[in-house]
Amino acid sequence: MAHEAHLEDLEGRFRAGDVRALARALTLVEAGHPLGQALLKRVRGQGRAKVVGITGSPGAGKSTLTDRLILEARKRGEKVGVLAVDPSSPFTGGAILGDRIRMMRHHQDPGVYIRSLASRGALGGLAGATVAALALLEAFGFDRIFVETVGVGQSEVDIARVADTTLLVLTPAAGDAVQAFKAGVMEIADLFAVNKFDLPGGERLIQELKSALELSPPRPGGWRPPIYPTVAATGEGVEELFEGLEAHHRHLLEHGLLEGHRLERARFEVESVLQEWGRRRTQSAGELVRRVAQGELSPEEAALALLDPSAKPA
Amino acid sequence: MAHEAHLEDLEGRFRAGDVRALARALTLVEAGHPLGQALLKRVRGQGRAKVVGITGSPGAGKSTLTDRLILEARKRGEKVGVLAVDPSSPFTGGAILGDRIRMMRHHQDPGVYIRSLASRGALGGLAGATVAALALLEAFGFDRIFVETVGVGQSEVDIARVADTTLLVLTPAAGDAVQAFKAGVMEIADLFAVNKFDLPGGERLIQELKSALELSPPRPGGWRPPIYPTVAATGEGVEELFEGLEAHHRHLLEHGLLEGHRLERARFEVESVLQEWGRRRTQSAGELVRRVAQGELSPEEAALALLDPSAKPA
Repeated sequence: MAHEAHLEDLEGRFRAGDVRALARALTLVEAGHPLGQALLKRVRGQGRAKVVGITGSPGAGKSTLTDRLILEARKRGEKVGVLAVDPSSPFTGGAILGDRIRMMRHHQDPGVYIRSLASRGALGGLAGATVAALALLEAFGFDRIFVETVGVGQSEVDIARVADTTLLVLTPAAGDAVQAFKAGVMEIADLFAVNKFDLPGGERLIQELKSALELSPPRPGGWRPPIYPTVAATGEGVEELFEGLEAHHRHLLEHGLLEGHRLERARFEVESVLQEWGRRRTQSAGELVRRVAQGELSPEEAALALLDPSAKPA
Repeated sequence: MAHEAHLEDLEGRFRAGDVRALARALTLVEAGHPLGQALLKRVRGQGRAKVVGITGSPGAGKSTLTDRLILEARKRGEKVGVLAVDPSSPFTGGAILGDRIRMMRHHQDPGVYIRSLASRGALGGLAGATVAALALLEAFGFDRIFVETVGVGQSEVDIARVADTTLLVLTPAAGDAVQAFKAGVMEIADLFAVNKFDLPGGERLIQELKSALELSPPRPGGWRPPIYPTVAATGEGVEELFEGLEAHHRHLLEHGLLEGHRLERARFEVESVLQEWGRRRTQSAGELVRRVAQGELSPEEAALALLDPSAKPA
């Protein structure tokens, strides 16, 4: 089948709600295949999901909590898409996959679609493909999309640019408060969950967060990030947390802030494309890089040469 | 004074080893001032320092350990430059500054120059200015340069691309092993220090690291990352650690690997420039971004429009 016929077929099935067409489109987009880009261009902008980013340290229980939040959303009749962004490290694969398996039970539920994506490098941010995948899920017509990232770096900052609502999951188990304060992650969260609240130190962590939030700069529209104690393993506190997500969404709507979030996501997408092109061009510019290393060219001169319009983006 | 005369004066004093000229040049480069770039272009490639990146979780004792490593380097008659890269978060400033003050005692020593730089955003990677600052320190003639980054994200990956030798500082205090394994930081370290080794769990952390390293992919030239127990507060184990840094440098020389590190650093510099330009262009491209958000343009089309040669880099 020719490219055009393939595209027509895929688009037809995608628009008809065929999950296999969605899966195929995601694979194409992740692989950077032109057919995926072509489909995305046609369906982009359809649908309007509530996009919730979920981040936090490894071991905070994000996947179990996401699992519970899916249940809450399903209780309310929402169609749910989940993007689970994995860092691509040989050391992490196993452990994280283990967590993810807990979400498998939803695989029997046609109202839930779960997809794992690789992030850019072990500690890198969200790859451009993640935002493209999000656009596909949204166009497919999900009411709510959870994007779960392992919070170990740039991806935490990225997720806050991409999601409408960002949930930071902490736990008293691992000195998380200190880590969050020092890493400056506090500022990006719209809501906090103190998960594994049944462990010692839960109440103290909440108090520490409250104190830190009082020093925190004011949020748009006067939003004050709430803190929810949760025990994802039992489901305790999860309904309240879900109501909190809803409250934040209403806040965005009431203060006209949703549009700004969508613009920021678009800006992130454009930046990601430019960054990826820059990375690829630099990777294949051995001679220019050699001249920079030897002091013959400044990095700026090499960058200008790489932006030469006769050099096509890879 | 005209630009050219300023530049001549600054270059003359820089080449004469005037520390105030170095400080001025660093300020100019950090501010993105053209005079800084012009000076850098003239002096770049002079000098040849051993560049050691030091990273690890907040609270691992990196600054105290750096302080001790400076002493070791000074004992051997080395001139030492230090770049301390701070994330620019309102929550971190205080605490980190507190650590940094410990290094102040070297301010009386003309053989040591210490400079703090802001990183790109709270969790961002190394800014382009960091690598430019490194090039300035190297051109100034330091024998050894320590680049200390707060290891909370992309900066850990970046530092490994910029330094010849990367030291990861862990501590038994904070569940660090698990964090390091999950975050995939293991792969970037050439050496490990288990600092605050006098705390409970030090020996166990070393055993865990050893086990993890056995599963780790082989390093160039067959290097096996050694693990050093240290107590930076007392100086215990620091001399051995310094010898380890030297051993790694010899390994790079003996296996012809240093040139590859220098090429990777140059590649990082070019990428950083392209990334920064892309970010600035996207920031000022309100209309294009709006059209992406509304689905009228794909991010790729917007990116192509931004790369139009008639649009000058900001």
